[in-house]
Amino acid sequence: MHHAKPLPSYLVKRYHGWKATSYSENQAWYRRLATEGQRPRAMVISCCDSRVHVTSIFGADQGEFFIHRNIANLVPPYEPDGERHGTSATIEYAVTALKVAHLIVLGHSQCGGVQGCIDMCKGEAPQLEAKESFVGRWMDILKPKFDLVSDVEDPAEQARQFERQAVVASLENLMTFPFVAEAVQNGSISLHGLWTDIGEGGLEYYDPSGKKFLPV
Amino acid sequence: MHHAKPLPSYLVKRYHGWKATSYSENQAWYRRLATEGQRPRAMVISCCDSRVHVTSIFGADQGEFFIHRNIANLVPPYEPDGERHGTSATIEYAVTALKVAHLIVLGHSQCGGVQGCIDMCKGEAPQLEAKESFVGRWMDILKPKFDLVSDVEDPAEQARQFERQAVVASLENLMTFPFVAEAVQNGSISLHGLWTDIGEGGLEYYDPSGKKFLPV
Amino acid sequence: MHHAKPLPSYLVKRYHGWKATSYSENQAWYRRLATEGQRPRAMVISCCDSRVHVTSIFGADQGEFFIHRNIANLVPPYEPDGERHGTSATIEYAVTALKVAHLIVLGHSQCGGVQGCIDMCKGEAPQLEAKESFVGRWMDILKPKFDLVSDVEDPAEQARQFERQAVVASLENLMTFPFVAEAVQNGSISLHGLWTDIGEGGLEYYDPSGKKFLPV
Amino acid sequence: MHHAKPLPSYLVKRYHGWKATSYSENQAWYRRLATEGQRPRAMVISCCDSRVHVTSIFGADQGEFFIHRNIANLVPPYEPDGERHGTSATIEYAVTALKVAHLIVLGHSQCGGVQGCIDMCKGEAPQLEAKESFVGRWMDILKPKFDLVSDVEDPAEQARQFERQAVVASLENLMTFPFVAEAVQNGSISLHGLWTDIGEGGLEYYDPSGKKFLPV
Repeated sequence: MHHAKPLPSYLVKRYHGWKATSYSENQAWYRRLATEGQRPRAMVISCCDSRVHVTSIFGADQGEFFIHRNIANLVPPYEPDGERHGTSATIEYAVTALKVAHLIVLGHSQCGGVQGCIDMCKGEAPQLEAKESFVGRWMDILKPKFDLVSDVEDPAEQARQFERQAVVASLENLMTFPFVAEAVQNGSISLHGLWTDIGEGGLEYYDPSGKKFLPV
Repeated sequence: MHHAKPLPSYLVKRYHGWKATSYSENQAWYRRLATEGQRPRAMVISCCDSRVHVTSIFGADQGEFFIHRNIANLVPPYEPDGERHGTSATIEYAVTALKVAHLIVLGHSQCGGVQGCIDMCKGEAPQLEAKESFVGRWMDILKPKFDLVSDVEDPAEQARQFERQAVVASLENLMTFPFVAEAVQNGSISLHGLWTDIGEGGLEYYDPSGKKFLPV
Repeated sequence: MHHAKPLPSYLVKRYHGWKATSYSENQAWYRRLATEGQRPRAMVISCCDSRVHVTSIFGADQGEFFIHRNIANLVPPYEPDGERHGTSATIEYAVTALKVAHLIVLGHSQCGGVQGCIDMCKGEAPQLEAKESFVGRWMDILKPKFDLVSDVEDPAEQARQFERQAVVASLENLMTFPFVAEAVQNGSISLHGLWTDIGEGGLEYYDPSGKKFLPV
Repeated sequence: MHHAKPLPSYLVKRYHGWKATSYSENQAWYRRLATEGQRPRAMVISCCDSRVHVTSIFGADQGEFFIHRNIANLVPPYEPDGERHGTSATIEYAVTALKVAHLIVLGHSQCGGVQGCIDMCKGEAPQLEAKESFVGRWMDILKPKFDLVSDVEDPAEQARQFERQAVVASLENLMTFPFVAEAVQNGSISLHGLWTDIGEGGLEYYDPSGKKFLPV
């Protein structure tokens, strides 16, 4: 590995600032977290998108949330076939090792992954349909939900509805994991679906009784 | 999907607090990020561990970092086989769509995933070796590096060295992606390996010339 | 005093969030509470335990409850000997200065203080019997009640019964304060004993006619 | 104990509302807190005053803060004389059993206990000087600090300054406990002094370098 470079100096400076202030104020707790281990209350499955910071929105500090971030906050279905399943590994670790009490799926507006899936479903993204497209193959998880929004004419509205369906799809797929279903049924875990509007700072939660998202 | 519950009220309160302060102060920028799209400077590949917040360490706000978080901050090798590869999808998106300037892999101390891999390599974790173990199959990525640390007698020191090898392995695997290798070679992207000590707030970067980690 | 540090930044952020929302919504009332003084309807004597929030359970806002919290929600007997008695001071203030209408003692499950007292009574906690043990000397208040539960074989059930006896002991000791007994007799105050089950969210009240706790 | 009454029905109703909503949303976590025990990050020493709710100000849920509340948020000096010391017991439990990372003393405006101490120091409160006055004997803890504010002419300003001195006195007395001093010195605990303005929702922290309180 010959290519790694030192950290850009603006990040070095910020790090030293954090060390002298936030770290210093919290040193005792961070040391305890290190020696005793984490005990996060919730796992959050969120998008990699740089505009979505779940810790900001919820004023969370180190130790509170176990966070998996991938393209479009998707959970694939349970497939114990001996292959690599990075997202499934995070869920397995959170539920069986850490025993988190909440599984929160956080979707968001202007999601590039979801838009790519729409483009694929409309036949407008041949590059994503190529076998070699990692993003395309990943977004295949969401494809079966496209029927639910294919009639929506306004493209922005269609995208927003499909982003919410990505959250519902992930919640549904979570329930295909035996250890999740069992934990839900015995009351040791609860599932939560959220969608946030990046520009307006809105937050909605999924209400399964009405099958829709409502403002929190 | 009948199982989703409303958001716990303490998080609802904290969200409304964020909306009225941090969001409000940054509304103009967040709206612009929403309408014009994200343009993150760097992608960070970090662990799901609740004790590692790269945005805190680097004082980063929404829009700065495209963040993928998985178990043990691992990057698998390039495998365009038409299967789902969630981590590879995040890298493809960051490099080819967002054209980030930096790829940062951030490892950390007390990593449960890395410890699990050590246990597997020592034959002490049969449950992780089962075909059905998602964590086990995921940590297989790191196994080839175990020879480099198998002689270290002190278990804590061995774990710390193996955590750093996880960073190196990810950097190496990043270079197997043609679009990453090309971007590195033409100077449009740079790679960075980091390791942070949770308890002490330390930060080290990988220096390929000496093949070791040095304090930032 | 050279050792105080600034508030951790995650709490600073949460505070500013509260200020901009809950405080702002209630500013007129909070200002009136400040200028006219508090007029709480009830005093609650509860445990310091982080899992017991009487304001949550009863949806109480600022101004409703005057709250004393100590180890195991204990009230010592009346002892006007000129020494410091912190708990007695809170009761005196609530009854004679604030003239609260209710005195509520709230016990709870999994109480570490009560468990410590059980261990002492069984001779299994020599460290708590040391003269220097503040927790031990405080839990001495409850010791005389141990005879009532010493025959219970199941340790969990014994602890739950002893936790309820701690509530009864406190109610009895409250009546040794002349100003409490007088207020009870002239009907200007009423006493209430409660016990909550942390994990199940249960709430029971003490019924003196049957000398037992009943679900609310 | 013949005097306990059932819980007032307005509180019964609120409790059932909490059980059906907040408890239900958090059941998994509350059950885990019950079975695995609490691990609060901080201890807060606050006043019984009904207008001061530290959990509101900091958006804290069950499990986050171990809270002791007494008259005027006072900590007495270390006195291991075998007598009952309720406040010292809470500190001993928080530091030695729970190993909290932060000790936060939270003072507040319009504190009746502090005003009583001022009245005593000015010779205007003979009833508080009586041996039998529990409040008077408790507020004796603060008396030695009166010299620092005795020259302040405006009574409201004098009270505010004395309320802040109550916080400083408690921080100083905390350091007389060997287990606190040791934990501070080895970095396993940090002390924080705060003062809140009830009417205006302000919050200040104690800065020992300038020996004054600054807005957070």
